[in-house]
Amino acid sequence: MKLSQLAKDLLLSYHDKDFDVEAINTLSNAKKDEISFFDNKKYIDNLKNTQAGAVFITEEFVSFLPAGVGAIVSENPYLSMAKATHYFAKDLIRENLDSKIDASVMIGKHVHIGHGVVIEKNVIILDGAFVGENVFIGEGSIIHPNVTLYNDTVIGKFCIVHAGAVIGSDGFGYAHTQTGEHIKIHHNGHVELEESVEIGANSAIDRAVFGLTLIKSGTKIDNLVQIGHNCEIGAQSIIVSQAGISGSSILGKNVVMGGQSATAGHLEIGDFATIAARGGVTKSIAGGKTYSGFPLMLHSDWLKLQAKIAKFFKNK
Amino acid sequence: MKLSQLAKDLLLSYHDKDFDVEAINTLSNAKKDEISFFDNKKYIDNLKNTQAGAVFITEEFVSFLPAGVGAIVSENPYLSMAKATHYFAKDLIRENLDSKIDASVMIGKHVHIGHGVVIEKNVIILDGAFVGENVFIGEGSIIHPNVTLYNDTVIGKFCIVHAGAVIGSDGFGYAHTQTGEHIKIHHNGHVELEESVEIGANSAIDRAVFGLTLIKSGTKIDNLVQIGHNCEIGAQSIIVSQAGISGSSILGKNVVMGGQSATAGHLEIGDFATIAARGGVTKSIAGGKTYSGFPLMLHSDWLKLQAKIAKFFKNK
Amino acid sequence: MKLSQLAKDLLLSYHDKDFDVEAINTLSNAKKDEISFFDNKKYIDNLKNTQAGAVFITEEFVSFLPAGVGAIVSENPYLSMAKATHYFAKDLIRENLDSKIDASVMIGKHVHIGHGVVIEKNVIILDGAFVGENVFIGEGSIIHPNVTLYNDTVIGKFCIVHAGAVIGSDGFGYAHTQTGEHIKIHHNGHVELEESVEIGANSAIDRAVFGLTLIKSGTKIDNLVQIGHNCEIGAQSIIVSQAGISGSSILGKNVVMGGQSATAGHLEIGDFATIAARGGVTKSIAGGKTYSGFPLMLHSDWLKLQAKIAKFFKNK
Repeated sequence: MKLSQLAKDLLLSYHDKDFDVEAINTLSNAKKDEISFFDNKKYIDNLKNTQAGAVFITEEFVSFLPAGVGAIVSENPYLSMAKATHYFAKDLIRENLDSKIDASVMIGKHVHIGHGVVIEKNVIILDGAFVGENVFIGEGSIIHPNVTLYNDTVIGKFCIVHAGAVIGSDGFGYAHTQTGEHIKIHHNGHVELEESVEIGANSAIDRAVFGLTLIKSGTKIDNLVQIGHNCEIGAQSIIVSQAGISGSSILGKNVVMGGQSATAGHLEIGDFATIAARGGVTKSIAGGKTYSGFPLMLHSDWLKLQAKIAKFFKNK
Repeated sequence: MKLSQLAKDLLLSYHDKDFDVEAINTLSNAKKDEISFFDNKKYIDNLKNTQAGAVFITEEFVSFLPAGVGAIVSENPYLSMAKATHYFAKDLIRENLDSKIDASVMIGKHVHIGHGVVIEKNVIILDGAFVGENVFIGEGSIIHPNVTLYNDTVIGKFCIVHAGAVIGSDGFGYAHTQTGEHIKIHHNGHVELEESVEIGANSAIDRAVFGLTLIKSGTKIDNLVQIGHNCEIGAQSIIVSQAGISGSSILGKNVVMGGQSATAGHLEIGDFATIAARGGVTKSIAGGKTYSGFPLMLHSDWLKLQAKIAKFFKNK
Repeated sequence: MKLSQLAKDLLLSYHDKDFDVEAINTLSNAKKDEISFFDNKKYIDNLKNTQAGAVFITEEFVSFLPAGVGAIVSENPYLSMAKATHYFAKDLIRENLDSKIDASVMIGKHVHIGHGVVIEKNVIILDGAFVGENVFIGEGSIIHPNVTLYNDTVIGKFCIVHAGAVIGSDGFGYAHTQTGEHIKIHHNGHVELEESVEIGANSAIDRAVFGLTLIKSGTKIDNLVQIGHNCEIGAQSIIVSQAGISGSSILGKNVVMGGQSATAGHLEIGDFATIAARGGVTKSIAGGKTYSGFPLMLHSDWLKLQAKIAKFFKNK
């Protein structure tokens, strides 16, 4: 849609030039036919270097925009962005797309196959699974009963998705009004599993708001695990049951997340890090070490601390 | 059924008058054609003021019953109540009820629509969803694939229920015999979502034992969240992934429950309270503050305490 | 398959005699037409007494094998075992098996009933449920919508399985290569629920690697609970929402696991033990007591410790 129309609908002013807006994206990733938003001073460098066509921004920061990048002036750029995402939501049903399903594919009864689906050879899809619009399923993968693959999900080769798992549900993202209402941010990204990924029963992996939520090759995810929107889980990682990975967390390769462990969002975990069961990661941590506790610390320190606490208070 | 028949089936005596029992309810809510139970001295005032037709009660407390309220004398009133709930379970299938589905409603394939269902305009129900008997779905709501709406569930306008979510499953309530068996309490209540509620993938919301489990307008619930029977979640609350709200908890409006946080049952959380990730609420707390930890404390105190512990034990 | 063929496929040598291998099993349970593996010195006594036909074993321990038990020599017996499980995976579809479904059984629409299924009288299976190959469902049980019962699951009489629950999914077990890849161990066992077991919405119970995962009579499991492979949950136990029981845990009878509690694997919990909410069990514990915390301790000690910590640091 035209920027002028979008600004009008949102009751905002914009300058300078009008153009056809194709999508919303982050400051770092937006191209010149896309719009972005600036909401946090932490990202001022991203603002100065953005290649977006225009940015939702408060008046006070307009001067930081690079030459040629337009402004859509808003008192609450995050809320404006949230409202704008509604205009770029993809169609729930896309009847004009053609599917391509290999003759060797075994599809159970009561399976929904959307439009524009590509399914490679030797895939097995069991009863009650839902395969949304524009989904790709690579060679040899198994989709167990009652799995839901939301629109645009990409499943690599030789993956296994266990019963009841949900891949590609909306991320949990809202902008908040002054009166405490939560305005849904439409998540127009998707989820991609690379090769040989296994997803446990009743786990949930949310789609990205923009771009993708990525589970890299060889990673194994247990039952009842939550993976938030825009996470990137490195190759050959192990995520044990009931762990929760908050949005935009980046895990390196061969990371182990123990049972019921968790991360806050927007942080990084280095390669070969192990988080013991129940560990709670609230900031970025180096790889190659084992961590425990909440607050998180080195596992060896946690063990010592627990022993010291027990000893010190024993006879108090 | 007649009180006399019920008492006979349960091998209990009753006095004084017989009547047609319509339902079981709490002491506070029971009407004169309903029965209740008294099991905990904490509720002695509710007993003294009950308007129930009769009450399961031990001999020793019969004298506290208001005039005109009958007694069904039991050594274990809670167990007797549990057994009695079986007689009032609603039919699983109710073929005589007519449904009313607006012509604009879009229903996928392999969807079960029960009897007596009302579905308003522009509702979308995707493949594999189950809509039980006597369910109501308000205008513009979206029911994603493989969702289960148990009988009698009420979904308000403009709600979104994500894939795999289960709404209206039985609460986890049992009475226990002296030999350690668990006698199921039939949950004859239901779940109601008000307007603009969003429920995440694979979350579970249990029906009430009597009355309802209520999620008020504008509340957003993330993936893999558990809401117990008879909870009331205030308007515009935010319940983050893997949080667990135990039965009969009452949350005010704009409450935030962080990831993996939890509450014990039968407590209240005030408006605008925030429970940080992993916080464990075991008793009622005031609104407007941020809490952390287990045991729970003010978030600021929790941060200080963790720092003090780390410092104190560092060189011990 | 012939041992000689298996050894050849895995590029291993074996001695002495060849035979038809029927299955893989533990050292303790393997019969003479089965093979096993020795990977941990802790189990040296099991090795010395095994009745397996042959054992995956490193060269250094071959001398501990009982007379008549063959060796399949491997530098990494666990990895060899993992690879070997692939050869003994049962067929996903077994068209030659006949089913036996009582005439009184009520089966909803969009239900998948596999081959070789036995369903006793008065069972109710609601819409969207998946009943795999060779599943048994005992008299009077109710299978709610969108439940998945994987192949070979046994459901006893008068059980209730709530919507979205998954029973019999693969256990989370892998062997790891030197380059950090995870080789799937095919779980060829199954899950059995005895009588009067109730399973909550969206819970997941994994099948055994060998043998069975067993939930004994009268046990009640809440929503969103994880039960790992090869667990044995004693009779009349109570597992509250979001608890996680790791693989090969053995719970006695009338054990209570509170909400969000958890166990590590390969441990035992005695009869009538109670684990309070959030308790984390990392080693075997005696029955008849109430425990809390992580690290776990007696609940009374945990309460005292928390009070002492609060008091001690109050004015620090």
